[in-house]
Amino acid sequence: MEALTAGQFSLVYNAFSFGIATFAAATLFFWFGRSQVSHHYKTALTITGLVTFIALYHYWRIFDSWGQAYEVANGVVTATGVEFNRAYRYVDWLLTVPLLLIELILVMRLSQAETVSKSLKLGGAAALMILLGYPGEVSEGIDSTRLVFGALSMVPFLYIVFALYTSLGEAIERQHESVRGLIRLARNLTVVSWFFYPVVYFLPFVISMNGGTATAVIELGYTVADITAKAVFGLVIYAIAVRKSEAEGSKA
Amino acid sequence: MEALTAGQFSLVYNAFSFGIATFAAATLFFWFGRSQVSHHYKTALTITGLVTFIALYHYWRIFDSWGQAYEVANGVVTATGVEFNRAYRYVDWLLTVPLLLIELILVMRLSQAETVSKSLKLGGAAALMILLGYPGEVSEGIDSTRLVFGALSMVPFLYIVFALYTSLGEAIERQHESVRGLIRLARNLTVVSWFFYPVVYFLPFVISMNGGTATAVIELGYTVADITAKAVFGLVIYAIAVRKSEAEGSKA
Repeated sequence: MEALTAGQFSLVYNAFSFGIATFAAATLFFWFGRSQVSHHYKTALTITGLVTFIALYHYWRIFDSWGQAYEVANGVVTATGVEFNRAYRYVDWLLTVPLLLIELILVMRLSQAETVSKSLKLGGAAALMILLGYPGEVSEGIDSTRLVFGALSMVPFLYIVFALYTSLGEAIERQHESVRGLIRLARNLTVVSWFFYPVVYFLPFVISMNGGTATAVIELGYTVADITAKAVFGLVIYAIAVRKSEAEGSKA
Repeated sequence: MEALTAGQFSLVYNAFSFGIATFAAATLFFWFGRSQVSHHYKTALTITGLVTFIALYHYWRIFDSWGQAYEVANGVVTATGVEFNRAYRYVDWLLTVPLLLIELILVMRLSQAETVSKSLKLGGAAALMILLGYPGEVSEGIDSTRLVFGALSMVPFLYIVFALYTSLGEAIERQHESVRGLIRLARNLTVVSWFFYPVVYFLPFVISMNGGTATAVIELGYTVADITAKAVFGLVIYAIAVRKSEAEGSKA
């Protein structure tokens, strides 16, 4: 098995630290932003900040776990035998992925009944998607467990993508025209950034993924995908909330 | 290779601790200041505080890394073999340098379209500048990698300096005369403090930089440059925000 080089170890280490700093800054930005939107959008920003806050916590854990899994001395990386805990990501997603969809629903300010029903359906599907992915991820092999649970997990995933372009898509077209483009952008950003996750999940079936290069690519890719799906997506939600507050003339 | 003396080790150690205290205090000052400016300038101060907050996080990590890289006993400094992680600075700059330019743009209160377009152009160029510097910095040698990436990184750097004196310069001249001088000062402070970074980057090509003295000078220089570019620059942004709020007669 190809070992991790010192450069690869450092790159991932620094990317995790970058994640910590980004999620901490994003969280504070979204929570400060609550005072700049009307009360209709405060909950959306509370949740936007909660998502990055939960990610901050998990990146802190992931950063520590990475540092404990390897020892670097004089430019040589050795595995310590302590396993790098990949499962932190699933624990994070179980909380943050449903909340990301709820953010998008909340900032649209639909009727109360529609908000509750869409949040339960999409949020529930997102939680189910992560729960089904977990047994496959921890099976630690390129085996039928990984394949079966991966396939099962794709069912709620595809349902969410379908819903984002059909029933939620219709609701987007009813939004004020000043924000319609931004809400479509938020929806598309979600779908595009989310596609990275199943690709990484199924990649071991196609190419050998045991080497240091594969580990570095996967961890960097997850970090970029998480920052896009949570912090960049959150900035779009913030922009929508500010613009709608202004358009509706009800400043905080 | 000339070793680090105990005096040099302590001086850098104390400078990093000074950085932590300065950035923590600056962050709190800027965020408390949000309540003293009109709502048009709150986002500028949120971001001013985020920049020093992100720097605080990285100086904390840099301080810890410095302490782990060397052991001091009976006045003798020995390297522990754990590498001092210089890359924290790049991770910090990747976030803070685009945000510094965005602070300046936000406090000018340009039209929404101009704010978005200038933030994307200047912020994007700043991020590109840092990303291009990274491979050269971690190449750990006075080689062609350092030279080529350093030269590439200078392209967005010079573009930013050019933009600050041309298109942004014109926008500065349209600002209210009570703050025009302060905004020019903020712009000039940015350019002057930023010039320190490429000087340090290219210095190893001119003089030998392996000794303890060189390490101490570089780390102290970066610390002074960071404090100037982030905390002192932030004070100017704060003064501009207060003065504009007063001039526009719309106190929070």
